Amino acid sequence: MKNEQIVLAKRPEGIPGDDIFRFEETEVQEPAEGEVTVKSIYVSVDPYMRGRMSAGKSYTKPFEVGAPMGGHVVGKIEKSNAEGFEEGKYVKGIMGWQRYATVPADHLSKISNTELPLHLYLSTLGMPGQTAYHGLLKIGKPEKGETVVVSAASGAVGSVVGQIAKIKGARVVGIAGGDEKTKYLTETLGFDASVDYKSDDFGEQLEDALSEGVDVYFENVGGPVSDEVFKHLNKFSRIVVCGAISAYNNPSEDIGPRIQSTLIKTQTLMQGFIVGNYADDFENADRQLSEWINEGKIHTEVSIDEGFENLPSAFRKLFDGSNFGKQIVKVADE
Amino acid sequence: MKNEQIVLAKRPEGIPGDDIFRFEETEVQEPAEGEVTVKSIYVSVDPYMRGRMSAGKSYTKPFEVGAPMGGHVVGKIEKSNAEGFEEGKYVKGIMGWQRYATVPADHLSKISNTELPLHLYLSTLGMPGQTAYHGLLKIGKPEKGETVVVSAASGAVGSVVGQIAKIKGARVVGIAGGDEKTKYLTETLGFDASVDYKSDDFGEQLEDALSEGVDVYFENVGGPVSDEVFKHLNKFSRIVVCGAISAYNNPSEDIGPRIQSTLIKTQTLMQGFIVGNYADDFENADRQLSEWINEGKIHTEVSIDEGFENLPSAFRKLFDGSNFGKQIVKVADE
Repeated sequence: MKNEQIVLAKRPEGIPGDDIFRFEETEVQEPAEGEVTVKSIYVSVDPYMRGRMSAGKSYTKPFEVGAPMGGHVVGKIEKSNAEGFEEGKYVKGIMGWQRYATVPADHLSKISNTELPLHLYLSTLGMPGQTAYHGLLKIGKPEKGETVVVSAASGAVGSVVGQIAKIKGARVVGIAGGDEKTKYLTETLGFDASVDYKSDDFGEQLEDALSEGVDVYFENVGGPVSDEVFKHLNKFSRIVVCGAISAYNNPSEDIGPRIQSTLIKTQTLMQGFIVGNYADDFENADRQLSEWINEGKIHTEVSIDEGFENLPSAFRKLFDGSNFGKQIVKVADE
Repeated sequence: MKNEQIVLAKRPEGIPGDDIFRFEETEVQEPAEGEVTVKSIYVSVDPYMRGRMSAGKSYTKPFEVGAPMGGHVVGKIEKSNAEGFEEGKYVKGIMGWQRYATVPADHLSKISNTELPLHLYLSTLGMPGQTAYHGLLKIGKPEKGETVVVSAASGAVGSVVGQIAKIKGARVVGIAGGDEKTKYLTETLGFDASVDYKSDDFGEQLEDALSEGVDVYFENVGGPVSDEVFKHLNKFSRIVVCGAISAYNNPSEDIGPRIQSTLIKTQTLMQGFIVGNYADDFENADRQLSEWINEGKIHTEVSIDEGFENLPSAFRKLFDGSNFGKQIVKVADE
């Protein structure tokens, strides 16, 4: 049986162009004892992948040149050689940018509740939802009445951060680009205010929205947008450093005001994290997030592109702000 | 009785010149019920005072123009109108840059153990020692075998940080300027290595000293020196942000690499603090620090200038690195 993969052809400089990807045809491997072959249905593209395309030291190994791109996938078991994993059942796991993956079954999670849309297992019930949950609640620790600011607020992580903060009784201010996204934050997600970082008077808009300062800042973007937020930190505030997407393509040009004096003035805690730090608590978080989804307290916006061949272009959209909600590519029918 | 004060004549720009201070003669106030008049003996000059000379929002109120400079003083009770505070006894407290201060006795601490040098109550047994103790142990939390890096390592705070870290079993690397100071760190204080930030090959020296990376960085200086340290952070490292002296005189020019991507890569915690956050635990710390001093485990270097009129010049020395150890001015005999 034929497989199709997208491999990293070379390491990118700046924004990844088409030339860094290569489509390859291979054979689907037979599952060995304990393995299954999974047909990809929904494939996730995420900002963190940009970091792994570079060779430098980071929190996780870089993608290898010549190997398929990694990433989370929701798929259906096509062939099983593992007890308890029946053909036709849905699973999720790290299977990468390919039509079929043959992997050890114990690297996968079964999707038992198929009443919810399957693609939610790549967003709110997947890595982005877990990231939002643990970052906000374990580092940000918002208290009732505090002000929580989140950047990339309409994105896969940011939208969940803001909605959990609302559930916890905080005042929530979202930062996003353009009218459609900022309206979505207040009108659909129930944020208390939203600010458009692309507008000429972003600084003043932010100041208006933050008359009571910032107690928790959930950082997804870095760069000049965050420099503005840092001017409004309250005493004992917390900065949850989840991402810095503005810096991923040009790290050497990520220059701005140093933050030490600010952190002293406000005695602020700033902490970087990756979701894997909280693996022990994934199950709890999953249960809680499912409950909130069922109660209608968390809404998930997705942007689903169709077609395996569109994975590279869907990935690129993450960096120019043109996607809306969690970016997913549907590569086969459910 | 005549008093002499140094008042803030105007707010400085850049490094404070002589013109921002004014010497004034006043009358010593009589102590009201519950007050004492204290004769200043040792007056402290500290980097944090630069921040309070500016008008901006900070962790504490700015000094007022026309009012005496604030600051810690060790002195002797000249006249008492407060029970339990006998004339001739030594006390410490915030009494500012003046020869006599008439203050409520309950704002002062009695110095009962006069076997230790009195000026220690402005250094290791005063605010700098408390700052080192709480910052290192409450935020940095060094574990046995970890590497602790401290900048401004021969200074009043840094030298205590490094010595406590050694007591706790860490490997300690100090950053200081010039041969005399770097030798002092390894030869007198027992640091495992020291690096001269003024040398041309500072980056390589640092890399050599940090082959095992940095687990705790105690930040006193900010600027390019710290940018270099940040390149060597280990996973789950902690940055204790105590000071950023390189930025105090020109905050608008404190531009450098933004830190968010680094914090994510290493999942580092970075926290600003001021010593007042830990007031509940001052007594414990005091007891512990006295014990370590008595056991010979903490050595304190002081630089004592003589003469009330030399307070401004002693203060300025903090910013060009020319002082060595805790800078104090002796303004009267014990």
